[in-house]
Amino acid sequence: VAAQSLDLSHQTGTTRVWIGPGALAQAAAEVSPWLGRRKVFVVSSAPVRKLHRRSIDSLLDAAADVVELEVPDGESAKSFATVERLTREMVIAGGKRDSRLVILGGGTVGDVGGFTAGCFLRGIDYAQIPTTLLAQVDAAIGGKTAVNLPEAKNAVGLFVQPRWVISDDRFLRTLPPEAIRQALFEIVKTAILGDRALFELVESSLEKLLAGDPEVLAQAVQRTAAVKIGIVAADEREGDRRRLLNLGHTLGHALETVVGHGELAHGDAVGYGLLFATVLGERNQLAGPDAERIRRLLGRMGLPRLAGLEARALSEVMARDKKARESGLAWVLPVAIGGAEVVELARGAVDHELASFLEGSVE
Amino acid sequence: VAAQSLDLSHQTGTTRVWIGPGALAQAAAEVSPWLGRRKVFVVSSAPVRKLHRRSIDSLLDAAADVVELEVPDGESAKSFATVERLTREMVIAGGKRDSRLVILGGGTVGDVGGFTAGCFLRGIDYAQIPTTLLAQVDAAIGGKTAVNLPEAKNAVGLFVQPRWVISDDRFLRTLPPEAIRQALFEIVKTAILGDRALFELVESSLEKLLAGDPEVLAQAVQRTAAVKIGIVAADEREGDRRRLLNLGHTLGHALETVVGHGELAHGDAVGYGLLFATVLGERNQLAGPDAERIRRLLGRMGLPRLAGLEARALSEVMARDKKARESGLAWVLPVAIGGAEVVELARGAVDHELASFLEGSVE
Repeated sequence: VAAQSLDLSHQTGTTRVWIGPGALAQAAAEVSPWLGRRKVFVVSSAPVRKLHRRSIDSLLDAAADVVELEVPDGESAKSFATVERLTREMVIAGGKRDSRLVILGGGTVGDVGGFTAGCFLRGIDYAQIPTTLLAQVDAAIGGKTAVNLPEAKNAVGLFVQPRWVISDDRFLRTLPPEAIRQALFEIVKTAILGDRALFELVESSLEKLLAGDPEVLAQAVQRTAAVKIGIVAADEREGDRRRLLNLGHTLGHALETVVGHGELAHGDAVGYGLLFATVLGERNQLAGPDAERIRRLLGRMGLPRLAGLEARALSEVMARDKKARESGLAWVLPVAIGGAEVVELARGAVDHELASFLEGSVE
Repeated sequence: VAAQSLDLSHQTGTTRVWIGPGALAQAAAEVSPWLGRRKVFVVSSAPVRKLHRRSIDSLLDAAADVVELEVPDGESAKSFATVERLTREMVIAGGKRDSRLVILGGGTVGDVGGFTAGCFLRGIDYAQIPTTLLAQVDAAIGGKTAVNLPEAKNAVGLFVQPRWVISDDRFLRTLPPEAIRQALFEIVKTAILGDRALFELVESSLEKLLAGDPEVLAQAVQRTAAVKIGIVAADEREGDRRRLLNLGHTLGHALETVVGHGELAHGDAVGYGLLFATVLGERNQLAGPDAERIRRLLGRMGLPRLAGLEARALSEVMARDKKARESGLAWVLPVAIGGAEVVELARGAVDHELASFLEGSVE
């Protein structure tokens, strides 16, 4: 497997995405002129900087001036306070509209860094260099950026596309197995909603993937990214098509909120969300054998037990979901392995299913 | 003069702008369905709310639910702190992606309200109802939104177009004469860069305009807005064409920073900026008689004396201007009454002219 490049066309231009072994080296020829003789801000967190900053040294050679910006490690980075501090540092460092911003890190660094690029001087060009599996298959692609409010995660943000995404597999070698396992839930989500062959790849190679096998991982990353790029290109601003990517996330987000983001990992939450969407899908048009395959694969991925959850609390949180319209909550349901659709469901019906689902899943 | 409507086409759709007597009533038929059965957030300041909130009561009749949001009066409203508070209130009130935001106020309310609409849940539709002359002819049109940083005004913001702009002349009746005088500098700026007939209207009717004569004012507002709409439609993201609107603002912003925003009003600062751009314009291709007419008109508008200014301090601030590119500072210079162009000037040459200009203008 070698790096491949895919183009994502959108309202404001094109994002070129390189994915796979040697992506950084392959991208350099095109990205260097874009950095050439500019002031370049590199946004990263301390742990990522320590592990990976040197990997982009040669990419940054063309820059006139490199200014390092640091954000806290973890979800707490995603705040207005961080954006305010970063933009102040950028003003003080002499940032201009034709300066560039390069994000090196996982999803949270990407979210707050992208938001910063999108609003500094009303927007400067930026690049995403995702260093986690989760960011490579999901967060870094599609231009969604965000910060959190105390009341709601990702409640503030921008759709603002990076000019480049460079997903080099070298970054994946340092990931702990648990980070890979968590990200696999997003890969499985993508497979269920849009790529049956990817689902079969995960089915047949789950153990290799969990062990971080570079060859299979590269294939899975490329396929997952390709599905996401196709969907975002068709629907940048999250009309019905892009909403398919929320498969498993409606209940997933609610679980994270109710259990606590520190207590339940995002991947596991999405795993439960996928299980519940499969239940609802069967009440819709998902055939039993496909539902059974989904359940079997998720079962092999090792979901933690949940304790003491109440359907009512989850239902309340879901009603405040930012994807909720005033007209009601749209659910993404699998219709087969490799396809999904958006269905608006009455809250009462969902609450009923949710109660039985929790009885079966919760200690 | 009756209200007219003009359409501004841009990357994400069309903004319809109503301007003049009866604009609110005329807009209602189209705007009501857009508000229909939605949660509507009304962003305003206490003084504006007191004076004008009832004027939009009937417009809001169609809404399911109206939530009032208040921002501080004046420039201090334009902060990350305000945006964070507003978005938190919107989450708590149950705001959704298809909720609407209506901004009632002048430029500062418009800037921070527009930024809030642009990033809440990654962007919700909004309308501008500008209540000041300055906002009607300038700030409310074109989708520029912003907050300030301690280091720089408008250093953070978004290009995000409102769905509607409703500039009713009823709001202008309560404006103090000084607010009208300040806004006239933007009208004269627009006349110089793009509408000779508008310049002649101001020349022939300056006293009526200063006195708030509704008939002449409505004509001037409509003509000024039309020029701005034409420019923004051709160049939404401030390439060279939209930069023409910065005529007089390069020195103007620097003066505000150095003298202090509380000490020197924006219009007066732009007035000085126009005088200086006229000097530079004469060194370029502006003919003497046109330069003289510009100076004469600005002279009649009553600029305050400036004291103890140093060219070096202004030059330093201009070098940090957010419109500066890393390559240098582009100046907008009049080439005739009714036309301007962007010229890149070496800092040394400008500093030299600025020193003599200050000698002639500063006590």
